[in-house]
Amino acid sequence: MLSKTSIPKYEKIMRYIKEKISNGEWPIGSKIPSQRQLAKEFNVNRSTVITALEELIADGLLEAQTGVGTIVTNNTWNLLSSSLNWNTHVEAGMLKQSRSTVQEINNSESQQQFIQLSKGELSSDMFPLQKMKDIINKVSNHITPFGYEEPRGYLPLRKAVSAYLHKMNVNVSPSSILIVSGALQALQLVSIGLLQKGSTILLEKPSYLYSLRIFQSAGINLTGMPLAHEGLLAQHLEHVKKKRKEAVLYTNPCFHNPTGTLMSEKRRKSIIETCTKHQIPIIEDDIYRELWFEKAPPLPLKSLDQTGHVLYVGSLSKTLTPGLRIGWIAAPEPVINRLADIKMQIDYGSSSLSQRVAAEWFQSGLYVEHVKKVRENLLERKNVALKLIKQHLEGLATWEEPQGGFFIWIHLLSPISMKSLYARARTQGIILNPGHIYHEQSSRYIRLSYAYASMQDLEIGIRKLGLLIRSLS
Amino acid sequence: MLSKTSIPKYEKIMRYIKEKISNGEWPIGSKIPSQRQLAKEFNVNRSTVITALEELIADGLLEAQTGVGTIVTNNTWNLLSSSLNWNTHVEAGMLKQSRSTVQEINNSESQQQFIQLSKGELSSDMFPLQKMKDIINKVSNHITPFGYEEPRGYLPLRKAVSAYLHKMNVNVSPSSILIVSGALQALQLVSIGLLQKGSTILLEKPSYLYSLRIFQSAGINLTGMPLAHEGLLAQHLEHVKKKRKEAVLYTNPCFHNPTGTLMSEKRRKSIIETCTKHQIPIIEDDIYRELWFEKAPPLPLKSLDQTGHVLYVGSLSKTLTPGLRIGWIAAPEPVINRLADIKMQIDYGSSSLSQRVAAEWFQSGLYVEHVKKVRENLLERKNVALKLIKQHLEGLATWEEPQGGFFIWIHLLSPISMKSLYARARTQGIILNPGHIYHEQSSRYIRLSYAYASMQDLEIGIRKLGLLIRSLS
Repeated sequence: MLSKTSIPKYEKIMRYIKEKISNGEWPIGSKIPSQRQLAKEFNVNRSTVITALEELIADGLLEAQTGVGTIVTNNTWNLLSSSLNWNTHVEAGMLKQSRSTVQEINNSESQQQFIQLSKGELSSDMFPLQKMKDIINKVSNHITPFGYEEPRGYLPLRKAVSAYLHKMNVNVSPSSILIVSGALQALQLVSIGLLQKGSTILLEKPSYLYSLRIFQSAGINLTGMPLAHEGLLAQHLEHVKKKRKEAVLYTNPCFHNPTGTLMSEKRRKSIIETCTKHQIPIIEDDIYRELWFEKAPPLPLKSLDQTGHVLYVGSLSKTLTPGLRIGWIAAPEPVINRLADIKMQIDYGSSSLSQRVAAEWFQSGLYVEHVKKVRENLLERKNVALKLIKQHLEGLATWEEPQGGFFIWIHLLSPISMKSLYARARTQGIILNPGHIYHEQSSRYIRLSYAYASMQDLEIGIRKLGLLIRSLS
Repeated sequence: MLSKTSIPKYEKIMRYIKEKISNGEWPIGSKIPSQRQLAKEFNVNRSTVITALEELIADGLLEAQTGVGTIVTNNTWNLLSSSLNWNTHVEAGMLKQSRSTVQEINNSESQQQFIQLSKGELSSDMFPLQKMKDIINKVSNHITPFGYEEPRGYLPLRKAVSAYLHKMNVNVSPSSILIVSGALQALQLVSIGLLQKGSTILLEKPSYLYSLRIFQSAGINLTGMPLAHEGLLAQHLEHVKKKRKEAVLYTNPCFHNPTGTLMSEKRRKSIIETCTKHQIPIIEDDIYRELWFEKAPPLPLKSLDQTGHVLYVGSLSKTLTPGLRIGWIAAPEPVINRLADIKMQIDYGSSSLSQRVAAEWFQSGLYVEHVKKVRENLLERKNVALKLIKQHLEGLATWEEPQGGFFIWIHLLSPISMKSLYARARTQGIILNPGHIYHEQSSRYIRLSYAYASMQDLEIGIRKLGLLIRSLS
């Protein structure tokens, strides 16, 4: 160990302070004890304390502020990452911090005491516990030694996904499929592997994509287009594409996050035609497709794609559980090969265990059976939520009845402070996603999820939401 | 569906060609059929074909080359990613393609027909199949519904890792631990979350890090320092740090990849002292620590760290299986919080299933038991490999006996063409890792792994390696 007795006293003080700073006890911006207190604590003259502080000031860890005292301005790791100015990271193509609201929501979502009207995840009462146990046991009984998978992922899973996609007229072979750790990772791979700094993503506005930092951090522009009743209009696309040469379209055609919109068949055809004509590649994020109520959505854009323009993203996270961290990309083989190479560079593939369990869900036929149940359960929840919304928000807001998915997009008749609404709701134990997370800045929208909270919590949550909106109007 | 009959003939030809290009049948650089052939195939005049080609040339997909014909120069996705010039991605902070050798090795490693003298992975005969089954079954029997985990990872696993690290004098609480999908992801998170473009990583040379693209793609400089017998020398660090202000040290102190070097206790102390003095954060990649033969390595740098300078990385990939994709980072809490936020942004956490299985390996005590067996098995393999190397490479090369880990770093007495060696070995069914992958450019080094190939393959592989070196000398 480092000898503690041979070092000079001022260095002892320095080490003590550095330790407090780096272990987070004295966070950036906090005031450290006075010179007098430190001198007393270490049994030294004030001049010794001053020597230590001067060294730390020179190192950039502390700053003396007249009339305030000595303030922590940095820590060793921060000196490196210059966290004080995350904006520079956009230019460097590095990852920005999550928006503070998103970060707070991420943290709150694992806390059980909150009523989660925000969470885009199935309630645990829809978790198929017995089936999951059976499947894991079956996988375990047949398992052979496993290690790194091949770059595109576990072949039996790719075969199963290929067969599954075939049923929705998406005809891709297993070699055109990449297994990823959820749809978010698919987007992360696209952002670092296919898109260049300065290129543009055309997308619906509002969009889930605005709540992410991965694209903006990579210096990619997000250009929103108005979202009509039946989904995106091809004419907007044509118009915007003229101005933006290197553009790709990101769309969420089934039960769009956050608005719940379902793109019509006609709209799909015209989007595909326009994108083919103008050579606009499409990222089709179709993770909510299976969660329909009355009838199945129109076939994917990918099924209409005759020229390899569509990169199709699917996942088990919204229909089974996000805990497996299993999703997939279907795209032309050269694109898949590039993305597979990049996935190898960032995490060497997804969990072999999760991939085997996912494959078994498909192969056993239990997945299709399970999703059917989820649809029924979600329909019931949707109806309950709509009834409660009608009861508590009538006259305050309008909304459309979703045809599937997790969300009701609530449109307030008068704008209110979303920050206050979010904060007050949180104080009352309710987490909600204000529209501004998705770049809807009119202070009139809330995304309400009926997928996660218990029926009782839905009731309490929506009732309180009504009162809160009233109090803020 | 898009009507096929109403479109003009030249557009049919365009679509046909686009499809061939985008599905990869006609790769970039290939020559497309002649105008005459296309005219015949589509039963049109040559002028119609010319119209189609001209459109595609204007779109940048094709190029007419005098005396050659019409060449594919791009595809839609490539137009976006401008794959033709991956170098620009370095500046954009995006991910470069793997070195072609590394990419080829990644692909070959999942092919069973090769003798893998390259693979940094335990042979499947060390896979604890029965124990793994028992553990998965136990996890399955006790499992409750699982979904997204909290940002830092599954708490029981973080507790187990904390207790495990405690045994090597690394005293970190579960809140200072982040679960990651393997050590590579730890490095990926550091590269995008803590290091800025233009900053420097000081590292051993050669180093595994040179085989990755994540740091260079992020615009981070790698500055190698000579690797002495007992590991890195602090004086080099001091010297280099003067020139590079924003620097972090990456080190692999136990059974270094690729050289096998073990850093001595004395060296560790002086590294920690120097880094503390000069405020150089340290990334300690300690994934081979447990794989010692005669005696356990000196305690981690992290155990000597009193000021939160060390970010410690561990993993189950080298000791149990990489298939779980489970590793961890231990660092001061503010650093962990930032990296956890970034992990949420890129993949929403690691597989819940893998995390539960990993936790059970620790909690049950079976992990410690298993690693003991791995050590014994590896020792035997190391002895066999050394005997074979002595038999077939004596007079051609020198080497040091490793004290643990997977690798023997073979130093050829005369330089040979590593490209030829690699290519010829591959032709003979042997995959090896030439030193230049790790930035050892003297054409004299090969990293030989005794961890993966069967004893028989080790024998064949090393014998053939001897013959190949002789033929190239």
